[in-house]
Amino acid sequence: MPITFAERLARAHHSSGSLLCVGLDPDPARLPKDLGADPIYAFNRRIVDATADFTAAYKPQIAFYSALGAESQLEASIRYIRERAPTALVILDAKRNDIGNTAEAYVREAFDRYEADAVTVNPYMGEDSVRPFLARPDRGAILLCRTSNAGAHDFQDLLVDGLPLYRRVAERAAAHWNEFGNLMLVVGATYPRDMADLRHAHPEVPFLVPGIGAQGGDLQATLEAGLDARGAGLLISSSRNLIYAGGGTATGIHGAAAELNAAINRQRPIDRRAARPVSA
Amino acid sequence: MPITFAERLARAHHSSGSLLCVGLDPDPARLPKDLGADPIYAFNRRIVDATADFTAAYKPQIAFYSALGAESQLEASIRYIRERAPTALVILDAKRNDIGNTAEAYVREAFDRYEADAVTVNPYMGEDSVRPFLARPDRGAILLCRTSNAGAHDFQDLLVDGLPLYRRVAERAAAHWNEFGNLMLVVGATYPRDMADLRHAHPEVPFLVPGIGAQGGDLQATLEAGLDARGAGLLISSSRNLIYAGGGTATGIHGAAAELNAAINRQRPIDRRAARPVSA
Repeated sequence: MPITFAERLARAHHSSGSLLCVGLDPDPARLPKDLGADPIYAFNRRIVDATADFTAAYKPQIAFYSALGAESQLEASIRYIRERAPTALVILDAKRNDIGNTAEAYVREAFDRYEADAVTVNPYMGEDSVRPFLARPDRGAILLCRTSNAGAHDFQDLLVDGLPLYRRVAERAAAHWNEFGNLMLVVGATYPRDMADLRHAHPEVPFLVPGIGAQGGDLQATLEAGLDARGAGLLISSSRNLIYAGGGTATGIHGAAAELNAAINRQRPIDRRAARPVSA
Repeated sequence: MPITFAERLARAHHSSGSLLCVGLDPDPARLPKDLGADPIYAFNRRIVDATADFTAAYKPQIAFYSALGAESQLEASIRYIRERAPTALVILDAKRNDIGNTAEAYVREAFDRYEADAVTVNPYMGEDSVRPFLARPDRGAILLCRTSNAGAHDFQDLLVDGLPLYRRVAERAAAHWNEFGNLMLVVGATYPRDMADLRHAHPEVPFLVPGIGAQGGDLQATLEAGLDARGAGLLISSSRNLIYAGGGTATGIHGAAAELNAAINRQRPIDRRAARPVSA
């Protein structure tokens, strides 16, 4: 029996002593010049080497790979993460959504082809489009809820019987579709008040949090709003601000990621912090 | 200056005399056994050969290709469509959604890598997640609005100031994001009353219509609800019911597709039908 997704997530926090999620978004316009053949794979190896000791999860954004036909470099990058950081989660950021046998095909893409631990999923099509991604207890589905962008207002904020749509999405998913405890929600750092409401309504559901740094989200406000009762429950995701630091050098990446990780850990309650296990 | 997406769509209807969109969803469990190497590509060639004379659009569902690492067979299939049916549209059914440079990467995937004429897009993240897909006047974005599945009720039907969410999505997109006239909406055949409301509210916006056949949508009700003033404005999409007909033989596929096309054309007003141009 494989361990559940919730156990994987707890182990990832515990082994790394971290809430940090490093986004692997290899924008061709910003890649360093010294990478040789398979530059995306080489860049990802550099990022993983520079951050493996204190990173809970890696999140490749699949668009950057599929735009370039670089699927094989994505596969290789994930294999490298498994070797170098065996307890870190791999989150495929793909925002997939469809129904029936198409949803099943996306599930196989994320969990069989790429062997990701979790995949991001869009809720707009409803229950039969989300459940296939939640059907494996050892893998997680991370549902878009309150995203970090300006356009999030357009539909997610619309009031439905007095509550914004994103709250209805969270409510429906957490109450009805989460038998295996493998649901997470995407909640942007740019809206800490909304995050606090969601944490209050869903004390047990972990959040994936984009929007710190490049998009202007405030770290302290995020931690105050989003930490759960154990001082965890958050994967704080950063990409551009980390991986292109110092021009994308190993030193630049290590420095920026270590600094963000330290800032997170300074601001979560010491006595509740998910420390490395004594036996590790 | 390339022709606009609206012109491409009109040409596709005109050349084929058809509203038919054939879905290329090569489910590995249902592929015929006689296809040899690159079976997905071989199957798609068979489908295109059997339907090219009366098909306005082909719609590969990308999940079936990416689940199997069959991107190169998708690329080859699209090249084959361009040779065999040069005026037919290619719609990449990918339901993409993201923001900023990630959305730009998905745009490059759909329009540069695969050279699709249009791509399906999910609206949940709002304006800044949709606009990048509408930024090229010669390519279309087909926004999920009222999908054909049962779960569509969960969120799309929620009332926002007296109108369901899917109407708000259509309203916002059609009124504010459609400068180039290259927006389409996904409107399922399973909800003809909702389609009629949408047609009334948006007389000029073309609909991509899934849900005829396998999902139980009624053709006559769909045409009554969705045809525009010129007896067009619809791409009626069918996949499983066509491509696996007769076990996926050329004869079976041709028969099922020709029959659906004839049924559509029988039921749209003769004097308004988009006929083949006299000069063709």
